[in-house]
Formats: sequence, structure tokens, C-alpha cells
Amino acid sequence: MREINDLYDYEPFKIIQDSDVFKFSLDSILLAEFVEIPNKDALVLDLCTGNAVVPLILSYFLGNKIFAFEIQDYIAKLAQESVAINKKNDQISIINDDLKNIKNYFPGNSFDVIVANPPYFKYKNTSLINENINKAIARHEIKLNLKELFEIVKFALKDNGVFYMVHLPERLEEILFVCEEYKIVVKKIQFIYSSYGKNASMVLIKCVKNANNGLLVNPPLFINEYTSYKNIFRR
Amino acid sequence: MREINDLYDYEPFKIIQDSDVFKFSLDSILLAEFVEIPNKDALVLDLCTGNAVVPLILSYFLGNKIFAFEIQDYIAKLAQESVAINKKNDQISIINDDLKNIKNYFPGNSFDVIVANPPYFKYKNTSLINENINKAIARHEIKLNLKELFEIVKFALKDNGVFYMVHLPERLEEILFVCEEYKIVVKKIQFIYSSYGKNASMVLIKCVKNANNGLLVNPPLFINEYTSYKNIFRR
Repeated sequence: MREINDLYDYEPFKIIQDSDVFKFSLDSILLAEFVEIPNKDALVLDLCTGNAVVPLILSYFLGNKIFAFEIQDYIAKLAQESVAINKKNDQISIINDDLKNIKNYFPGNSFDVIVANPPYFKYKNTSLINENINKAIARHEIKLNLKELFEIVKFALKDNGVFYMVHLPERLEEILFVCEEYKIVVKKIQFIYSSYGKNASMVLIKCVKNANNGLLVNPPLFINEYTSYKNIFRR
Repeated sequence: MREINDLYDYEPFKIIQDSDVFKFSLDSILLAEFVEIPNKDALVLDLCTGNAVVPLILSYFLGNKIFAFEIQDYIAKLAQESVAINKKNDQISIINDDLKNIKNYFPGNSFDVIVANPPYFKYKNTSLINENINKAIARHEIKLNLKELFEIVKFALKDNGVFYMVHLPERLEEILFVCEEYKIVVKKIQFIYSSYGKNASMVLIKCVKNANNGLLVNPPLFINEYTSYKNIFRR
């Protein structure tokens, strides 16, 4: 069912959702908050944008255009409508295509910042049970896996450009292996815990293309300690 | 200067140290505490043992012999004396040799558990300034780097055997890359923070040889919240 919701406390933003197909989650909010915009004119690309939560939040801080890819037609339509009701058509461009076609849109080394909330789960044939195909594509690596994502990031990011991603801690070994393999070097890791004493439920990483090795692990963040996530990493 | 110290609150253990050459640190204590002994008869190998803090603590829980490598003659001598004053000669064997000669001592796939507190820092020619050679070898990858360590672990560990290591969070990307490369697969990560709000200062990892990918990131541990580290992961 289609709904128009508030984008949490990001006034006056509204967001178009469909509870049967795609709703944004806290992951996208924390990812957008984790991004450090180098300057207002930075060129930013959002991958796997869903209903455009990340570019909407980032549009607060950016003067330049933001590009965002979404492979699924119906979800890209939700994104386009979300952009429209927030009157951001001039600033945010939704590209409804497979990321693997990125070379048809941009030359290599184009972006200062790339952001991604990719599918979290490895794809197995049994993974689809109990899920509709839209949810399955958003959650499982059916159309895009980690290696393919990093191939695209390596192509599209400027040298010393910055890549931000949210993912599951369970997959950290594979993620850091691919980072090292593609020299999208991890500089900062932020673990998210639902509360004190629990295992990490989410991981945010900040990488710099072709940087030297050496990273910081941020203080842990317990999400139950907050009622608002706005500026959560800027407090 | 040589000293006989208490091994924190691990009564009645004493430890032989030399403040000019080698003293154990909290890292070794937390590493030993992080080890889960599968059973009393497990065959355990400790690498880069220093003055034998790890095998001494593990001897509490083990009936079987514990083997421990230390490359530096004088530090191996401290380890041997520490073992002797605690009357553990029958249980703990200190091997004063380069790990790379491990094949002269054990056949492949020998150990149920391997533990390591390796040198933390990459070696550069400038790294030695202000340090004596014993401290430099213990801290810098002069005689052993990450890849060489994992080569040895892969050789000596049984299939499904468990490897525990303490290291710096700064090097996590390189560590997880090597884990994945050698299929010494990370199953658990424990970050250590000096206090709330600080970046992680230490990382403990638990790996299983040839396991499937998929790991847990433990709740963070703030060391300033404890006065004793005994059983810190068993509370």
C-alpha cells in the first residue's frame, strides 16, 4: 500500500513508500548521517537509492546535483515521486538502470563521494521464499554482489574520492577483503548496536580510493540511546 | 632491570620481566581471556609468547601440554624462568626458535587452538629509532609479518581448528584480507576501548580454519570499567 510519510525529523521532507514493496529503514538514515560532505560543490553519487532517502538528506548540505541509481522500475518511481513532492527535481537525478551500465552515464573518476546501501544477503535459490521479488532484489545479491559494487565504485570514484557504505557486520571479512583488493581503502568503521551488551547490528564504513592502509574504529553507537538520528555523528 | 612480578590477580602466578627488554601488557591478558578452550585435552600452541603470560593463564584450563614459540633468546629465557617458578615445566614447553622453522617440530594440522600476540607495527627502517632491538622485534614486523604468521597458522592448525589473535584496529583491513586469503575465517571480533567515547585501541579476533564466512561483532568492552580482567569474557 502506498503511503506518504514524514522522513523522521528531517522537516519538511516527505517520503513516498509502499509497505508491500519498499520502505526505507534506519540504515539509510545512519548512512546519510555518516557521510561527510567535503564541500557544497562536491559531486555525489548514491547507489541502490531505494526511495531516495540518502540523496534527500544529503541535499540539505549540497549545492551541486546529486545522482542516484535504482535498478527496480517501481522503486525508482517511488524515488522520483519522493524527489518531486520535496521539490528537489532540479537537484536530484534518479537514474532507473542497472549500475553495471554506469559507463553509459558518466566517464571514470567522476565523483568526489559515492554512497551505497547495497543488498545485504548472499543470494541462494532458497532465499526468495516468503518474499516478493522487489524486496528480494533490494535485500539479496540477486542483481549486484559486493565485487560488482566495488568494481563500479572503483570506476566512478575520483582518486582520493570517498566511498561510504552500510552493511551487516556478519559480512565484514568479505567486505574488507574486497576493499583491500580494489584499493578502496577503509579509513573509518562505525559499528551500530541496538543496545549495550548486544552484538553489533550494523556497520558503516568510510573508504578512500587508493589511500594508504590504516583505519580508525569509532566509539560504538547504541541506537536505543537516541530519540532522533539527525546529526547523530555531529554531536 | 629484571623483576619478579605478580601476574595481576592470577594467583599464585608470578612472572619474570625485564623493564629494559620485555614486559607483558594487558593485550596478552585479554588475549588469553578471549580464548575458549574446547576441552581439557585440546592441543594448544602459543605464538610470539613473550614471557609466557598466555600459556600460564591457559594452563589453568588445560590438562594437556602447551607449546609456545619465542624467537628472541633472552625473552625465551624469561619465559622459561616464568614457567619454572610457577612449576609448570611439565605442562608448558617454550621453543626458542623462529616460527618459520615450525615444520621441524610439528607435522601439519596438529593443533586444536593457536593463539598469537604478534608484532603490531609494519617495519620501516626508521621504526627502530629510540628503541632497543629486543623491543623493536617484539613490536615491529622485523622477523614476522602478517602473511608469514597466517602461513604458519594455516600449516599448524587442524581443519576447523581455532585461531585467536590480538592486534591493532588500525590494521583490521589488512588482517581480514589475509584471513580471507588463507581461509582462516573470522567468526568473532571483540573491540577494546580504553573508555566510552574513544576509538577502539585493540581488537581480538577468533577465526576457524576453512569455516564458512559470517562473523559476530561482540558488544564493546570498555577497559576502564574493570578493576580485574580475570574471566572478563565469562561474566
